Amino acid sequence: MSKSYSIAILGATGAVGTRMIDQLAKSDIKVSKLCLLASKRSAGKILVFRGRHLKVQEAFPESFDGIDIVLASAGGKVSASLLPEAVKRGAVCIDNTSYFRMNDDVPLVVPEVNAECVKAHHGIIANPNCSTIQMAVALNPVRQKYGLNQIIVSTYQAAGGAGQAGIDELYQEATAYLNDEPMESKILPVKGGQKHYPIAFNLLPQIDVFEDADYTHEEWKMIHETKKIMCGDKNSQQLKVTATCVRVPVPITHGETIYFMTDTAPTPDEIRTTLETAPGVIVQDDPKRQIYPQPVEVVGSQQTFVGRIRSDMENNRAYHMWVVADNLVKGAAWNAVQIAEELIKQDEVHGSQEFANLF
Amino acid sequence: MSKSYSIAILGATGAVGTRMIDQLAKSDIKVSKLCLLASKRSAGKILVFRGRHLKVQEAFPESFDGIDIVLASAGGKVSASLLPEAVKRGAVCIDNTSYFRMNDDVPLVVPEVNAECVKAHHGIIANPNCSTIQMAVALNPVRQKYGLNQIIVSTYQAAGGAGQAGIDELYQEATAYLNDEPMESKILPVKGGQKHYPIAFNLLPQIDVFEDADYTHEEWKMIHETKKIMCGDKNSQQLKVTATCVRVPVPITHGETIYFMTDTAPTPDEIRTTLETAPGVIVQDDPKRQIYPQPVEVVGSQQTFVGRIRSDMENNRAYHMWVVADNLVKGAAWNAVQIAEELIKQDEVHGSQEFANLF
Repeated sequence: MSKSYSIAILGATGAVGTRMIDQLAKSDIKVSKLCLLASKRSAGKILVFRGRHLKVQEAFPESFDGIDIVLASAGGKVSASLLPEAVKRGAVCIDNTSYFRMNDDVPLVVPEVNAECVKAHHGIIANPNCSTIQMAVALNPVRQKYGLNQIIVSTYQAAGGAGQAGIDELYQEATAYLNDEPMESKILPVKGGQKHYPIAFNLLPQIDVFEDADYTHEEWKMIHETKKIMCGDKNSQQLKVTATCVRVPVPITHGETIYFMTDTAPTPDEIRTTLETAPGVIVQDDPKRQIYPQPVEVVGSQQTFVGRIRSDMENNRAYHMWVVADNLVKGAAWNAVQIAEELIKQDEVHGSQEFANLF
Repeated sequence: MSKSYSIAILGATGAVGTRMIDQLAKSDIKVSKLCLLASKRSAGKILVFRGRHLKVQEAFPESFDGIDIVLASAGGKVSASLLPEAVKRGAVCIDNTSYFRMNDDVPLVVPEVNAECVKAHHGIIANPNCSTIQMAVALNPVRQKYGLNQIIVSTYQAAGGAGQAGIDELYQEATAYLNDEPMESKILPVKGGQKHYPIAFNLLPQIDVFEDADYTHEEWKMIHETKKIMCGDKNSQQLKVTATCVRVPVPITHGETIYFMTDTAPTPDEIRTTLETAPGVIVQDDPKRQIYPQPVEVVGSQQTFVGRIRSDMENNRAYHMWVVADNLVKGAAWNAVQIAEELIKQDEVHGSQEFANLF
């Protein structure tokens, strides 16, 4: 990575945006210029990148003049309106929102799984949903070696999936509860939704809005995105995926209990060995010594942590695992920076002429 | 219930014991005498039952002289040594510990599911595990009407499953965390275990000790107890059950995501209708209005709450539901008192002559 790049971070002051700055700083990417963009409300804030103090600017179409790579996490509407402007100006955009994810002309990339897909970009690459990413990292090595035909996942998702406001709400509610004061819920389960419920010392079986067949948008994201990432758009019927998503009173880092069925019948030890050498995976799985992944230990890590690997006793070729990852780092900021690294490595840092006709 | 009974509560000062006093007070059972028993350490405490102030006594074999019904929740070892003494003296014991649950000569009873099994008692009836009870209450009406052949459950279990000490630890850790002080973990995941981890703002994929095939004792309990309750000992191969149990930072009330497969293919609306008239079940399932069960609303209730009922999109005859119940009330104290009500209704309040040979 000898070339240096002009990079913009859109939504730089948010929970994901600030982590994009951190993860970019830790990466091998040479940055000639870093442009921090946000809404008018956040403009003027000073943030630090590799020792330099940078002022956050309000985002306009012209902000992307001369930018090579955009990392975006400012909400679907902002991506929808501003990313085409950036592509028009020659940038390639890595979008953390769900807006473009299921578009056939937009690669959906988890670098440990389908890095080769970045080549097919037309100016925009989508970063998958946080809960999807960690499941794909943990299961793809299993799929490659033993085949994979079914996934049933239950999630234990952090308040931080709703951004810093979700984390703040959890702490405020917990403080109120412990002081015998009423909890005031304004954000969760869905920002701007009709009803709000406490997350502190509670469980909310709703993440994002309800859609078809009484599944939430989060559940549909896990189902469709996992198929697109692991099988490609055309072969998604090869893999059955279903999900129930639950918000839990944890600030950052998602947990997942995953039941999966393989084509062949490896032993749990063989699966463990496969995952121990898999990219981006750390196996923490020693029940006798009470070793398994826990959010408080995983927070801040780039890796996906896997434990509780065991056979199902009722179905041959069925297994269980427990997967934990930092939803804001590997589930968002770090995965986006990894995609940027892949674009550079594969010499795909460019905008797209076809873009205007596609979106 | 015109007769009145002499009742002892063993472990009366614990999280379950105090709720046994409350639930007994709310029941229709006429109590001629209530004997509150505990360890030496707790003897002398004063507790209130139906307006009367009662002093807790240290438990000895002789404490059960003249007692008709024992409600026990003082740990497996205490039940193992003292309940045979009570039966010898003519009492029938309802035991909340796991000690006798899988014994072929001990009925394991959830009154909404298998009340008729109390008849087979030989002096001891076992109260199932908390996470098992709520799943059985929610799924048995489905099993009766549509057949049931597979259950895959992930639990979201409260700190209170480890008793009042678990609840206290959660609050102490949360307070420390919010004040930037270190969390001191002394109880969870397993009291007396080698290692202790924080539960506040964390997730622990271990409940009870690890056993065969890297399943925890809690997971095995859910598997074996569910089969015994729903199918009887002899037909347990008719129903596949598997479980992953996770402790979450909630004080009281367990949540469960349940994937289940039926023999016929009802619609979710048909399942909803079936559950709406089922004993002990309250359906809270209106996604458009954001209605679903939540621990903060369920705590203190005797009922089992069911929501998020929906078809699996990948497997015909497969469904999902979200089940929430108070683990200390329906999951322990109330279920035990319900068993006592059944014993009275079925005129089965008696000890057992065979008992000495059986245990």
